[in-house]
Amino acid sequence: MPDQGLCIIISAPSGAGKSSICRRLLAACPELEFSVSYTSRTPRPNEVNGKDYHFISRDDFQRRIDQGEFIEWVENYSHFYGTSGKAVHDVLGRGKDLLLDVEPRGAKAIRGKLKGGIFVFVLPPSLDELLNRLQKRGHESPEAIQKRFTQAESELMEVLWYDYAVMNEDLETAVQQMIAIYRAEKCRTSRLHGKIDLLFHQVRKCS
Amino acid sequence: MPDQGLCIIISAPSGAGKSSICRRLLAACPELEFSVSYTSRTPRPNEVNGKDYHFISRDDFQRRIDQGEFIEWVENYSHFYGTSGKAVHDVLGRGKDLLLDVEPRGAKAIRGKLKGGIFVFVLPPSLDELLNRLQKRGHESPEAIQKRFTQAESELMEVLWYDYAVMNEDLETAVQQMIAIYRAEKCRTSRLHGKIDLLFHQVRKCS
Repeated sequence: MPDQGLCIIISAPSGAGKSSICRRLLAACPELEFSVSYTSRTPRPNEVNGKDYHFISRDDFQRRIDQGEFIEWVENYSHFYGTSGKAVHDVLGRGKDLLLDVEPRGAKAIRGKLKGGIFVFVLPPSLDELLNRLQKRGHESPEAIQKRFTQAESELMEVLWYDYAVMNEDLETAVQQMIAIYRAEKCRTSRLHGKIDLLFHQVRKCS
Repeated sequence: MPDQGLCIIISAPSGAGKSSICRRLLAACPELEFSVSYTSRTPRPNEVNGKDYHFISRDDFQRRIDQGEFIEWVENYSHFYGTSGKAVHDVLGRGKDLLLDVEPRGAKAIRGKLKGGIFVFVLPPSLDELLNRLQKRGHESPEAIQKRFTQAESELMEVLWYDYAVMNEDLETAVQQMIAIYRAEKCRTSRLHGKIDLLFHQVRKCS
């Protein structure tokens, strides 16, 4: 039976640059799988069903909530977002590592349920820059942007309970830090018992 | 006042390749300082006083033990080895990061004294390879090599209480893992309170 995979949960306020970091991390570490969330919102231009999200109806989402399918789910701006607990445990059980892109409330819900999960928070370099990035996206009204910004401010406080914080001042540096966090966590002694047992077995044979 | 520096303590049985990894880590991360240990043994060819070790007499070493100068010291193969506590705290107090190359017994002594220290153990890929490397060094008698090998076997067990384990099967991979551990630990939320406070301060000003 393979060792349990490593689960990285990444969160950030809107506009901190989390999606770009996730894409780059996944490209650099092909052994890391991405957990595709479910949502009841409609796809944005360029979003692909089954890749960016599993886009399902509100009724379907509600039914899955009732059946306890989600390890975490939230309602945000009148849309549901959630992560399938079965999908997560299947991947980790196969010994594969998994990246979850989950907002702070959802991450908090997962925290008590996923032993050994690694929680990373992406910080914007400043609030001015965060607002600037939200405005540049260009697909939302000024009111929606202001609402996101206000929520982002309160979400920032959540960073304190995360294991790691990556400040996205420069994307390249932030990506390298994310990769380092993943690589380092793979070297945690507590995750290497298989390899270490093998060495100990040699010691016992020699003595 | 700068934030306290990060202290990485690296240990390994003789022949695991720790010194090469330390050299490469320091070259890749010039902001990381190396803690030069004290020893009462005579320098090997190519070893430089003040760089590889502070080479001092047995009497001088004993005097410094009596004065409580060492954060850890051990007697190994009839020679003393130790780390100056004052030097370590001076560097960390200046906000600089420090690498300590300390054998397992010494590392264990430091463990309770250095809050936030990161302990990394370098593992050989196998016991055969470890013996092979000890023999290749060429500056010790077969008896000395056998003694080191026997000690290495018992030291291997210590890996279990270390934070991280790096398996030195391929030097390049091991070096990259060491660098990742250092970079990742710099992103620990608990070490970033300065930067995070700055963001929170902006939030308070906005609201």
